[in-house]
Amino acid sequence: MSALDVISARDLPAQARVALDEHFGDRVSYSEAIRSQHGQSEAHHAAALPDAVVFAENSEDVVFVVRLCSAHDVKLTAYGAGTSMEGNAIPLYGGISLDMSRMNRILAVNAEDFDVVAEPGVTRNALNNHLRDQGLFFPVDPGADATIGGMASTRASGTNAVRYGTMREAVLGLRVVTADGREIRTARRARKSAAGYDLTHLFVGAEGTLGIITEVTLRLHPIPEVISSAICSFETLEGAAATVIQAIQCGIPLARAEILDDVAMGAVNRWAKLDYPEKTTLFFEFHGSQTAVAEQVATVKELAGGNGGGGFQWSNLPEERARLWKARHEAYYAAVNLRPGAVGWSTDVCVPISRLPECIADTKRDLEAASIPAAILGHVGDGNFHVIFSLDPAAPHEMAEAGDINARLIARALAMDGTCTGEHGVGLGKQDALVDELGDSVDVMRQIKRTLDPRGIFNPGKIFVAG
Amino acid sequence: MSALDVISARDLPAQARVALDEHFGDRVSYSEAIRSQHGQSEAHHAAALPDAVVFAENSEDVVFVVRLCSAHDVKLTAYGAGTSMEGNAIPLYGGISLDMSRMNRILAVNAEDFDVVAEPGVTRNALNNHLRDQGLFFPVDPGADATIGGMASTRASGTNAVRYGTMREAVLGLRVVTADGREIRTARRARKSAAGYDLTHLFVGAEGTLGIITEVTLRLHPIPEVISSAICSFETLEGAAATVIQAIQCGIPLARAEILDDVAMGAVNRWAKLDYPEKTTLFFEFHGSQTAVAEQVATVKELAGGNGGGGFQWSNLPEERARLWKARHEAYYAAVNLRPGAVGWSTDVCVPISRLPECIADTKRDLEAASIPAAILGHVGDGNFHVIFSLDPAAPHEMAEAGDINARLIARALAMDGTCTGEHGVGLGKQDALVDELGDSVDVMRQIKRTLDPRGIFNPGKIFVAG
Repeated sequence: MSALDVISARDLPAQARVALDEHFGDRVSYSEAIRSQHGQSEAHHAAALPDAVVFAENSEDVVFVVRLCSAHDVKLTAYGAGTSMEGNAIPLYGGISLDMSRMNRILAVNAEDFDVVAEPGVTRNALNNHLRDQGLFFPVDPGADATIGGMASTRASGTNAVRYGTMREAVLGLRVVTADGREIRTARRARKSAAGYDLTHLFVGAEGTLGIITEVTLRLHPIPEVISSAICSFETLEGAAATVIQAIQCGIPLARAEILDDVAMGAVNRWAKLDYPEKTTLFFEFHGSQTAVAEQVATVKELAGGNGGGGFQWSNLPEERARLWKARHEAYYAAVNLRPGAVGWSTDVCVPISRLPECIADTKRDLEAASIPAAILGHVGDGNFHVIFSLDPAAPHEMAEAGDINARLIARALAMDGTCTGEHGVGLGKQDALVDELGDSVDVMRQIKRTLDPRGIFNPGKIFVAG
Repeated sequence: MSALDVISARDLPAQARVALDEHFGDRVSYSEAIRSQHGQSEAHHAAALPDAVVFAENSEDVVFVVRLCSAHDVKLTAYGAGTSMEGNAIPLYGGISLDMSRMNRILAVNAEDFDVVAEPGVTRNALNNHLRDQGLFFPVDPGADATIGGMASTRASGTNAVRYGTMREAVLGLRVVTADGREIRTARRARKSAAGYDLTHLFVGAEGTLGIITEVTLRLHPIPEVISSAICSFETLEGAAATVIQAIQCGIPLARAEILDDVAMGAVNRWAKLDYPEKTTLFFEFHGSQTAVAEQVATVKELAGGNGGGGFQWSNLPEERARLWKARHEAYYAAVNLRPGAVGWSTDVCVPISRLPECIADTKRDLEAASIPAAILGHVGDGNFHVIFSLDPAAPHEMAEAGDINARLIARALAMDGTCTGEHGVGLGKQDALVDELGDSVDVMRQIKRTLDPRGIFNPGKIFVAG
C-alpha cells in the first residue's frame, strides 16, 4: 500500500473540538471549502482534507494547538502558502491544518547586521517589499511567493542559489514549538556559532515533521550597485551547460544562471506572446559594481560564443532586464499549460555539475520518446533542474507514464552521485528515492523523528514512514 | 562537581584489550607517552589520559572499534591533530583515543565540481598542497594545521569565513560510523539537496559525540586570479570595526578582515621581530579579478581614511603579501608567549556585527583592569573575536581570574544576542554558557544524543552532561 492510498480524514475527538472552539472562535474552520483549500497542492498529488483548519496568530496559539494535538493524538500539519511541489503540506491523515499565513509580522530588520527576524507566514515578496527602502534584499527565490516558514521547512532554493545559497545558508536561526509544547530557540543572531548541535539545520528541510516553526531569522544581502541580465541561445544543451561550468571555473560570481530547453522556450513564447528562438536558452544575472559586472558580462559572452551560443543580449536597465527574464519567470505556468486544462507535475533532481550536461541530455532523450509533453528548466549553476509534465487529468495512464519517467530521472541522478530532490523536498513523492539515495541514514532520520515526535503528530506520512 | 574535576582513567575490560591487540597489533598503544600525548590539548584544559590509543587506517578499523566499544561499554574519543581549544578531544573518562591521522588519503578531487572527497585525517595544509596544481583551494583556515575531520567536528572557521563561510558551509557530506557500528552516508555529492533531514549538519559541530567521521566531502573554490593584501592601523577599536562594517555594507566581498589590538601588535613585534605601530590594526585580503580587486582596495582605503585609519599598505605580490600578513599569522603564539613559559587560554565569542565595536571595547576595558596579559584578535567581518590569555602555570589564581573575565565576556556576548563560541566549540569549557545561550534547546540536543548514542560511548562529558 503506497502512502498515496491512505487518504482518509478522521473526525476530531469531541474534547479537542471544544477546546479549539473555545480558544480560536472564528479562527478555526470546519467548512468543506476551507478544508479543501488546505488539502490541495499546486501539483499532481491527490488531495487529503484536514478535519479542521486553525489560523494561528502568534506563538501562543501554536503552543496551544501542539499541546492539544499531543494530548488527544491529533495529527498536525503546518500550512504556509500552499505552493510546495511534493504534497509536503497535504494533511495525509487528516487532523488539523495549521495555517500560518496570519503570523506575518516582520519583527526586526537589523540592517547593520544584514538580518531580519520575522514570523513564518511572511512571504518572500512581502519581505523584499519591506526591505527595499533599506537597500537590502532576501535572495532565495523559488519562483512562487512562498512563505519563509514553508521555504525553511522544505529547504527551498531557486534561481539565486548559485551565488547566495539556499534556505540552508539563509536561515540563521529559528524558534520552533516542539512536540512537548515548548518553544525553543535554535540559535542566537551571530553570523556563525560552534555552540552545540546545529538544531537550526535539523529543522530546516524537516518538512514540519519535527516541530512547528514560529520565527525565522534570515541573512540578508545589500542590493547590488548594478544588476545586469543577459540571455543567449544555444544549438545544444551541452554547449549551454559547458558555458555555465566554465564561467564558474573562471570564478565569475554568477547571481543566476538558468536554462530552458526548446520545449520550455516554445511554451513561454505561446503563453506570454514572446518570440524568442525556440532553442536551449541560458538566462544570466550578474550582481556587483559597474566595472565588476561589465567584466563578468564580457567574459560570459566570450565563453558562450566559444560554446556555440548566439544572440547574446544584455542590459542593466530594470525594464529591459524584466523583458529579458520574462520568459524565465513565466516558464513554470507556461510549461504546465503546454496543453489547456492540464495539471502540472514538477520534479527536480540535482547532480554534480560536471554530470549535468549528460544528465540533461539523457533526460531530454527520454522526454522526446514520451507521449506527454514535458519541459526542462533548471538552475544550471547548481546542477539542479526540473522536468515539468503537462498532464491530462482525465487520462490516468499519463500519470503512470510521468511516474516512470520520474523514476528513471531519479535513478539517473543517483547513478551520477546526485540527489533525488534539489529543492522540492521528499514529501509524498520521493520516499522510496530517499532510501535509494541515503540508505541507512534514513534509519537515523527515523530515530530522530521518533525521539522528537514520539506520538507522531507532526505532518505524518511525509519524508518516510516513521515506523 | 564540574566536568573538569572528573578526570580519571579506567582500565579497559580484558576482553576488549585482547580484541584490540588482535585486530590492531602495533597500531594500538598503551604507553604512557602516547597516551599522554592524546590526553593533552594545546590550551589550558587539564589533561585526561585514555587507556589506549588506537591508530585507525580505514573505515573498517573504525567500525571494529565502535562495535567493540559498544559491546564493552568503553568510551571512545576521536583524535585528529590535537589543535582544538576547548579540550574537545580530551578523553575525559578514559577509554580509547581513536587517532585518525593515518586516515589521510585524498580519495577524489572532482575539479569540475569544485569538491574533494577525503579521509578525516587529512590536514588542511596537506589538502591545499594537493589541490594547488589544479587551481583550486579549500578556504577554511582556523590558523592551526588541523585535520578536516576535527574541523568538521568542531564546526571550525577562521580568517576566510567572511567570504567563504565556515565548515558548516564547506562540508557537502560525510560518512559516519554510528553507535550501532554502521557506516552511514549523510549526503550525495550534489551541491544542494532537499532530501530528508540534514544529517550532515547534525554531525558537523557535534564534537564527535554522535559518531566517528570516516570521510568528508568538501566544497572547493577556484584560486582567485588576483589576491591582494592590505593592512591599516587605527587610533580606536571603533574606527577599525566601523571600517569593516561599512565595507560589508558596500557589498565588498572581503576575503579576510582581521583585527589585532595594540597588545597583540606589541606581542607580534617582539615575537617575530617586526616593527608595526602598536595600535589596533586591520588585515585585509581581497580575491577577484585585477579590476575588481583594485576597486575593492581603493574603496576600503577610502573607508579606512574616513575612520581614522593610517599607514594603509597593500600589495598583490606573494612575498609582500606574506610580509604584510606575518603579524597576523604569528599572533596566536605571540600572544600566548606574552610571558615566557606561559600557557595559553584562547576563548572566542561571536556577536551580531553591529554590536562588535561595543563588545570589543567593553572587553578591552575589562582586560586593561586585569592582572594578566591578554590580547584581542578577531575575525571582525564575522563579528567573531578571541581573547588570548598568557597564563603563568605556577599561579592558579591566574586561571581563576581568566575564568572570571571569560564568564563576563560570554555574558556580554549573550546580552548582545551573540554566541558563547563562534568557532572553538563547547567542549569542556562552555557547557554552562551553552545552557545560558540556548536554554531548552540543550534538552533537545540531549534527546538526540541519547537516541543516537544510547550507551554514551562517544566523547562523553563534552558539550553537555548527557544525563
